[in-house]
Amino acid sequence: MPKVKKSLAPKRAASARVSVKRPLREKISVNKVSRSAAQTGLNEMLRGVDWRGQLYDGQVVLLDQTQLPQKVVYRNVSDIESLRSAIISLVVRGAPAIGIASAYGIVLYLVPFAVKAKKATALEKPFKHAFERLVSSRPTAVNLRWALERMRDCFERHTTDLTAIELCARLLMEAKRIHREDAELCARIAENGMALLPVGGGVLTHCNTGALATGGVGTAIGCILYAHQAGKQIAVFADETRPLLQGARLTALELQRAGVPVTLICDNMAAHLMQRGRIQAVMVGADRITANGDAANKIGTYGLAVLAKHHGLPFYVAAPYSTFDLSLKDGMDIEIEERHADEVRAPQGTVFAPADVQVANPAFDVTPANLITAIITERGIIHRPNAKSVAKLMANGHSSPAI
Amino acid sequence: MPKVKKSLAPKRAASARVSVKRPLREKISVNKVSRSAAQTGLNEMLRGVDWRGQLYDGQVVLLDQTQLPQKVVYRNVSDIESLRSAIISLVVRGAPAIGIASAYGIVLYLVPFAVKAKKATALEKPFKHAFERLVSSRPTAVNLRWALERMRDCFERHTTDLTAIELCARLLMEAKRIHREDAELCARIAENGMALLPVGGGVLTHCNTGALATGGVGTAIGCILYAHQAGKQIAVFADETRPLLQGARLTALELQRAGVPVTLICDNMAAHLMQRGRIQAVMVGADRITANGDAANKIGTYGLAVLAKHHGLPFYVAAPYSTFDLSLKDGMDIEIEERHADEVRAPQGTVFAPADVQVANPAFDVTPANLITAIITERGIIHRPNAKSVAKLMANGHSSPAI
Repeated sequence: MPKVKKSLAPKRAASARVSVKRPLREKISVNKVSRSAAQTGLNEMLRGVDWRGQLYDGQVVLLDQTQLPQKVVYRNVSDIESLRSAIISLVVRGAPAIGIASAYGIVLYLVPFAVKAKKATALEKPFKHAFERLVSSRPTAVNLRWALERMRDCFERHTTDLTAIELCARLLMEAKRIHREDAELCARIAENGMALLPVGGGVLTHCNTGALATGGVGTAIGCILYAHQAGKQIAVFADETRPLLQGARLTALELQRAGVPVTLICDNMAAHLMQRGRIQAVMVGADRITANGDAANKIGTYGLAVLAKHHGLPFYVAAPYSTFDLSLKDGMDIEIEERHADEVRAPQGTVFAPADVQVANPAFDVTPANLITAIITERGIIHRPNAKSVAKLMANGHSSPAI
Repeated sequence: MPKVKKSLAPKRAASARVSVKRPLREKISVNKVSRSAAQTGLNEMLRGVDWRGQLYDGQVVLLDQTQLPQKVVYRNVSDIESLRSAIISLVVRGAPAIGIASAYGIVLYLVPFAVKAKKATALEKPFKHAFERLVSSRPTAVNLRWALERMRDCFERHTTDLTAIELCARLLMEAKRIHREDAELCARIAENGMALLPVGGGVLTHCNTGALATGGVGTAIGCILYAHQAGKQIAVFADETRPLLQGARLTALELQRAGVPVTLICDNMAAHLMQRGRIQAVMVGADRITANGDAANKIGTYGLAVLAKHHGLPFYVAAPYSTFDLSLKDGMDIEIEERHADEVRAPQGTVFAPADVQVANPAFDVTPANLITAIITERGIIHRPNAKSVAKLMANGHSSPAI
């Protein structure tokens, strides 16, 4: 395997990338990982979302994930309706990445109003509009609402002590802070998780949990990248992750570009590879973790947990504190989203099945806590999770103080 | 594909089908299933291979499976090289169907030689050529060699007592007999297996084991069809079966046409459906069964067996006696065929993954006997298979007497 892959559309993508600011690289350099980004291939890391420019001329830069891996195309978004469309059409995806993009979206929308107004209170109505347009774009993404509510808290704290444009500047600072914090969360999860991965072993992952889905190195993929950087010589098996193929389209690409040895497989090949001793650990992300440690994640995850148990392999879930939903007692309380049949019948527009055949298309599944070896968070690792250990870790943690 | 005459588009295909002899329908009517084919939708059954015409003007009719489910196109094949290409390119697939097609192929090749020769011994060299060209088309298909060896036995028995053209007539009779016997095997397997399926339950199946893959109603699908005919009101979940999507393209279509309620799923959804109580049994076919009862089948089968065990569900394998390979002690002796990476990276020509990403593409996997609830054969059912019970069933059986 060649170490680092070039972009598939080199010239266009490369020049577009040069103009994008890269706050992530600096962040990575302050982590405890000793090798430089240039040495490890992390400088080739794709970024799902970023802010470009200053306050008045700012834009949200999105890497169009619907065109990956064939084309690396960045889209500059400067109005809220375009951003909303981009979220709905999965140009940007991954709960943390959507949250970050939406936080920037609030600023995009308010600045034109602020240049005409003095008092910050004049922004109250526009803020409400922006909040509603963005929060409704993907109603199931937990981090989207969380990020927008943080922006609202910030807005409400400063409507009396700042002018309209000062408040916009403060909101941009808050959005960048959400972005930076997510990168830091990822880095801490990666540091905690890398220790669990086997030296010289095969690691299976599912869906996409990397830089494209988050504001940093990712969750499960972050652990894998850090283990790779630490010289653990792991070989990754990436499930293609039907129906939307995030594994084939995004994870394979991200790991290739980072120089991590990766082998793409169909979802139904994992059991065989476990039987033949080629996989030593499974590491995945999570969409939601309930109070007892049950984890909802992309469809296919639960099956991998059962297979891991049968083969005596550890099954790890990597996720930040914002993934925990302590209002739900266990995973059976989580409603399973059913998506459109054509995702199964005609992936990427190519019809594979009878056009009218009935389809089941659950978007995710629930892995019970008793199949999870450990949950890796930025606050530490919960071994053999249960209601007690989850409650303990969540009580110990603290979210960022308001400034 | 060169030299293969096309019969394009549905209308022409339908008229082509009218002229094809349909021995299968009569066969179904003599089974113990009481409802007529018209009542049950079995008259809609697609046929993968058939012989059309008489001895001098005969052709092998193949339903082009590479074009399903979008188009039902029958190809009339009248020379051995076209038949070989059709087998290699998966126009016809399924071990029994390939065996039948090859047996007919021997006749296709010999007739032009026979019209010029009197003595049957003049056909010895052409026979050898035809045998070699056909047996090498899919070296791993057990039934292909088995069928061709039966044709050779027949050829050798009659080279002294028949003229060249009489021998060709006798070989056509033998090929039709192989075809008819396969239909009868399927019917007996289906009768034995239908009793095991739950009334009003969900049955999961994998890959394609129906009329397209065999000379009759199929093996696992045969059991399902008979259970449906018997009024068991089963609901079938069909795995799409990546990478080649036989489940989405073929099984979904066959069951739809037979009027059996079928729901197509991605392979990674089976575990979730089992967890939610929607599946009561798993029924699959087999490519090879070793002396101890281990079963090799399409990749993804082994994982389903592990999942079935975890959820306390029965896991059934349906296969005729010719699938047993008593020369192999257990499944770990079976070499796993590794197929081309583009089957995973670019299914049906649509590129899903980085074009150069490394891929694992094992074509099948091995389910150990201890995960198999029962193996259903035409000779009876082996519950909890092991070396002793397999040996007992195989010893009791007898293959057809030579005539």
